[in-house]
Amino acid sequence: MTTIEKLLAIEAIKTLFARRVRAMDQKDWVLYDTLHAPHAVLKSFSPDQAGLAPLGSHGGQLAAVGKAAILEAIRTLLDGEVKVTTVHHAHTPEIEITSDTTATGIWAMEDMLWWDDDGETQFAHGYGHYYETYEKIDGTWLIASRTIRRLRSDTPPDFFRYMKAG
Amino acid sequence: MTTIEKLLAIEAIKTLFARRVRAMDQKDWVLYDTLHAPHAVLKSFSPDQAGLAPLGSHGGQLAAVGKAAILEAIRTLLDGEVKVTTVHHAHTPEIEITSDTTATGIWAMEDMLWWDDDGETQFAHGYGHYYETYEKIDGTWLIASRTIRRLRSDTPPDFFRYMKAG
Amino acid sequence: MTTIEKLLAIEAIKTLFARRVRAMDQKDWVLYDTLHAPHAVLKSFSPDQAGLAPLGSHGGQLAAVGKAAILEAIRTLLDGEVKVTTVHHAHTPEIEITSDTTATGIWAMEDMLWWDDDGETQFAHGYGHYYETYEKIDGTWLIASRTIRRLRSDTPPDFFRYMKAG
Repeated sequence: MTTIEKLLAIEAIKTLFARRVRAMDQKDWVLYDTLHAPHAVLKSFSPDQAGLAPLGSHGGQLAAVGKAAILEAIRTLLDGEVKVTTVHHAHTPEIEITSDTTATGIWAMEDMLWWDDDGETQFAHGYGHYYETYEKIDGTWLIASRTIRRLRSDTPPDFFRYMKAG
Repeated sequence: MTTIEKLLAIEAIKTLFARRVRAMDQKDWVLYDTLHAPHAVLKSFSPDQAGLAPLGSHGGQLAAVGKAAILEAIRTLLDGEVKVTTVHHAHTPEIEITSDTTATGIWAMEDMLWWDDDGETQFAHGYGHYYETYEKIDGTWLIASRTIRRLRSDTPPDFFRYMKAG
Repeated sequence: MTTIEKLLAIEAIKTLFARRVRAMDQKDWVLYDTLHAPHAVLKSFSPDQAGLAPLGSHGGQLAAVGKAAILEAIRTLLDGEVKVTTVHHAHTPEIEITSDTTATGIWAMEDMLWWDDDGETQFAHGYGHYYETYEKIDGTWLIASRTIRRLRSDTPPDFFRYMKAG
């Protein structure tokens, strides 16, 4: 890859990431569906991960495998029976192009979620870093995997009650 | 435009945007005055837009036309009779160069406003996306239009009382 | 410097900055130790600067000189006797390459600090801009100086009590 191609790839990956968080927050599931690789893997997403993930491990439980499953998991969580207003902001990317068709990225992140529980607004607020990998397939950069390493989460007592009920 | 020119234009537009929000928050109106195109259009700024803008329309009422009117509108709102401390943070730009002299940008955003109302600190907190267009005039990228699409706004009851009084 | 080299330098500096705030928030002091120039200067860091810095001056008191002293100052503040959970988010960089081996940067920033004081969680929340300079030494961009110009700080009454006790 030439230097220019590398710079172009970095900008493409930043834009890809931007579309993912915007699609999620605007609940644009048509756009969301175009951003992951077919075999993409999502970790650190299950209710058990609502607290602090151990800083030493980027692991987390497997939440979804495959772009269709990832879309379904996110859509059910945020735009299912309970409508969750979300704001995901991400900052200061560290993108590394690891080959002509693969790359990694680390993003500082903050997420805010508001939803209604029996007439009362609930609010959850988290901080951490996304660790992602990317793949270029048929000329387009796509998200291949994502996990979160949390710094802190402030959640109401029944954070995932609506999920268990679902 | 060559690939390098495109990358340069994207970086120039990101810096232009950065200067606009910094000038506003630091109340540097001399800098602010250099950032918009002469015929720039600002939408979604009026008090009526303090609530959630309909997600389907990027519209919003016309707030100001022309760079002098935009500067005047912002300066009056934030640095007029009532002094408003503001923090505008914006994230994950999606910049698209649409011709040699035009571009579009989407930015995730968050704004925080603090002001004094009869000795009590008021606070407003909003979230959404800026939708902007840019134009290159005499070799310099400038902001040609801006609107906001809100995800959520938390505002005190009398959010714009000071404006009506103005 | 060619245009491509300039774009590469800007991306390298953005990544350098990203590593600095991530290393601080993840308390990765090994990584932190690699990011400043040997003679780097840190201003605006002492307890006296917890309030609003005068907007007109980027000055602030000298907090630490030399990369070892900067690391020691930050580590003692955040990861010493009192463990402080921190989230530093920074936005919309304005990077200017001023020569083959020097550059400047302005970043909008927000910092959040949580710590325990006699069993009670304390929280400080600040907003402002980092003003940094960078130097390229032996082919690697490093942070040469940093100061903060605050827009607002919300701190508990005894913000730096634990420091005085240290």
